[in-house]
Amino acid sequence: MGLVVQKYGGSSVADAEGIKRVAKRIVDAKKNGHQVVVVVSAMGDTTDELTDLAEQVSPIPAGRELDMLLTSGERISMALLAMAIKSLGHEAQSFTGSQAGVITDSVHNKARIIDVTPGRIRTALDEGNIAIVAGFQGVSQDKKDITTLGRGGSDTTAVALAAALDAEVCEIYTDVDGVFTADPRVVPKARKIDWISIEDMLELAASGSKVLLHRCVEYARRYNIPIHVRSSFSGLRGTWVSNQPQGDQQVEHAIISGVAHDVSEAKITVVGVPDKPGEAAAIFRSIANAEINIDMVVQNVSAASTGLTDISFTLPKTEGRKAIDALEKAKGTIGFDSLRYDDQIGKISLVGAGMKTNPGVTAGFFEALSEANVNIELISTSEIRISVVTRADDVNEAVRAVHTAFGLDTESDEAVVYGGTGR
Amino acid sequence: MGLVVQKYGGSSVADAEGIKRVAKRIVDAKKNGHQVVVVVSAMGDTTDELTDLAEQVSPIPAGRELDMLLTSGERISMALLAMAIKSLGHEAQSFTGSQAGVITDSVHNKARIIDVTPGRIRTALDEGNIAIVAGFQGVSQDKKDITTLGRGGSDTTAVALAAALDAEVCEIYTDVDGVFTADPRVVPKARKIDWISIEDMLELAASGSKVLLHRCVEYARRYNIPIHVRSSFSGLRGTWVSNQPQGDQQVEHAIISGVAHDVSEAKITVVGVPDKPGEAAAIFRSIANAEINIDMVVQNVSAASTGLTDISFTLPKTEGRKAIDALEKAKGTIGFDSLRYDDQIGKISLVGAGMKTNPGVTAGFFEALSEANVNIELISTSEIRISVVTRADDVNEAVRAVHTAFGLDTESDEAVVYGGTGR
Repeated sequence: MGLVVQKYGGSSVADAEGIKRVAKRIVDAKKNGHQVVVVVSAMGDTTDELTDLAEQVSPIPAGRELDMLLTSGERISMALLAMAIKSLGHEAQSFTGSQAGVITDSVHNKARIIDVTPGRIRTALDEGNIAIVAGFQGVSQDKKDITTLGRGGSDTTAVALAAALDAEVCEIYTDVDGVFTADPRVVPKARKIDWISIEDMLELAASGSKVLLHRCVEYARRYNIPIHVRSSFSGLRGTWVSNQPQGDQQVEHAIISGVAHDVSEAKITVVGVPDKPGEAAAIFRSIANAEINIDMVVQNVSAASTGLTDISFTLPKTEGRKAIDALEKAKGTIGFDSLRYDDQIGKISLVGAGMKTNPGVTAGFFEALSEANVNIELISTSEIRISVVTRADDVNEAVRAVHTAFGLDTESDEAVVYGGTGR
Repeated sequence: MGLVVQKYGGSSVADAEGIKRVAKRIVDAKKNGHQVVVVVSAMGDTTDELTDLAEQVSPIPAGRELDMLLTSGERISMALLAMAIKSLGHEAQSFTGSQAGVITDSVHNKARIIDVTPGRIRTALDEGNIAIVAGFQGVSQDKKDITTLGRGGSDTTAVALAAALDAEVCEIYTDVDGVFTADPRVVPKARKIDWISIEDMLELAASGSKVLLHRCVEYARRYNIPIHVRSSFSGLRGTWVSNQPQGDQQVEHAIISGVAHDVSEAKITVVGVPDKPGEAAAIFRSIANAEINIDMVVQNVSAASTGLTDISFTLPKTEGRKAIDALEKAKGTIGFDSLRYDDQIGKISLVGAGMKTNPGVTAGFFEALSEANVNIELISTSEIRISVVTRADDVNEAVRAVHTAFGLDTESDEAVVYGGTGR
């Protein structure tokens, strides 16, 4: 029996009852002979409430102070969780990100972990304690200021601690039963996946699946940490995310792992770009300078008569305004006719390592969309993923059609519950 | 223009509006050329709410974890206050007790400050920042755990920082205009005191005045830090507490500083104690072993016929049960007839350095009580204080009578507002 890192999201510890329920589950793991490190998010909507407060006192809250503010949320949940465990007769100690040795860079509100030095956690474990660690937070290496890791940060804390402590597994407890072949709110027949490779999980996360965030999966891949995503409400086995299936897992080697969708993106089309070297570079340099991450990029075939082409790309809707501003500012030097902005788009992605060796997958994907009468606006592919952009209104229908076409529908009628993972 | 430490209680920063109001006041001090260090309590009822949460998950919350929990309260208020200041165009940085170098012993929930090493505060000030420090909290010297200082802890933080930073003054902002000659809720004609000596303030605090707690005044005396108690709502000068009046203060050398009262105590009478050496010692050793602080002690004259005497003492009502239990347990070895417990008592104290050289004070005090028809049950005196215990029901009338008799009534009709100081 080795060391286990467990992470509980905000919805699992939303109130005193939730905290007591989670405490029992943690104690069970301890009783089973594990050393247990727990990473916990802030209770329920605490982070949103604190953000609201910040906006009431300051329209643009200073990053350092916002981090100081937000980290109080985990401080509350971790202390309460440690108390609840102690009242069950087991020893527990809570640690802030700083105390747990989570060292980050100095980029407030979205810091990156650069080192984990869990000396105090190790000592606490050796003394028989359950260690409770605040998720989502760290301390900056140079200034010793409190930092936060941004969205999904608690998952990243958990995986990073698991790596630093050489844990057997990082268990991510959430309010769903695991990773599904599609979002069950959209596809009622979506199946829970028993095992998925880290590569496929990375593509699903990048394509809009919300259960695990991309950054956390990347970390798990780099340090080879198996992740077990499971429900904090049921006792069921969830989804294992790892390089290889666990010894006793029945895994059919699926061609397709799942269908992800994303309606959080917008499309910008730069119309009438001179078809000559350097134009595309100039466009994306101006976008990069504005610190905007883009997703898909497509360049139309140039019209021979005019020597002009159109370039389309997708990006988070939240960055749309900034991107338009950046391009308008650079219009004189780049040279294009006009900009078109469209935020009524959706993206559907089919992910699976099996598609590398199954040439019919792309054709089957497009056929399914065609039969569902869904028009394709952009296409982008990787070795283990195909993504298309469609009208936002078509997304749900498209996901269901593709899910059925690739034989992913479950036959059982069991109800599944689905929601966010907190942060 | 030197360094000023300002402390704001929970009622001053109860909501976003309060925080913005306090931010303006802080910026004003900065504009006047001061270096400013601000100590802030948790917002409004935050601490009570967190304590409630703790009790929901654990009947007797672990001290270390309770401290971790409660300190999130100041983390929230200090970060918001720093943001509010920055949005007014001034630089501010918030610091936890630990970051501010408030080093304590390891007694969770009522730690004592053993050192203050404000290196980061000094650096922040030198760089032109206003430093915002979490009150009420520190870090333990041996284990590096988060600790809290107990009731009134933020005031103590402020005075301790003022001492460590060699501040000109420690300003305690609260929801009253200063220290009054009596509690204005009881004595509408109570006067605000312009200046009071630290010794008199110590006695008032020990006798039930709630504006400043005893521990904070003790700290100010030890390090010779002038305290200015004033309202965060008005711009008025409040009460200076210091060894000497400030240069421009008009101070009539009052015989009496004020009248304090306290209805939070109970009286225990140990009846029928053998009048022989060691009996009183045995009684108070058993009380001390139960870690109970007692206040007044009176031993009756022994009745010659029986060789027995009664010993009465007062203590906080909250400790009553514990004291009775301790005495009952020791009854066999001490030897007494019975115990009487009375929590319907009140204490009235007259405080003033002038009484040392004015022999008529004691007589005048008793005469005033007698005229008000108030019966005296216990008497205790120090060089600058006389205290009596009466029926709780008589306290308010007694305070008013004594206040008038010693010429403390104000002649103006100005309304005064009175309340707690937060912690």
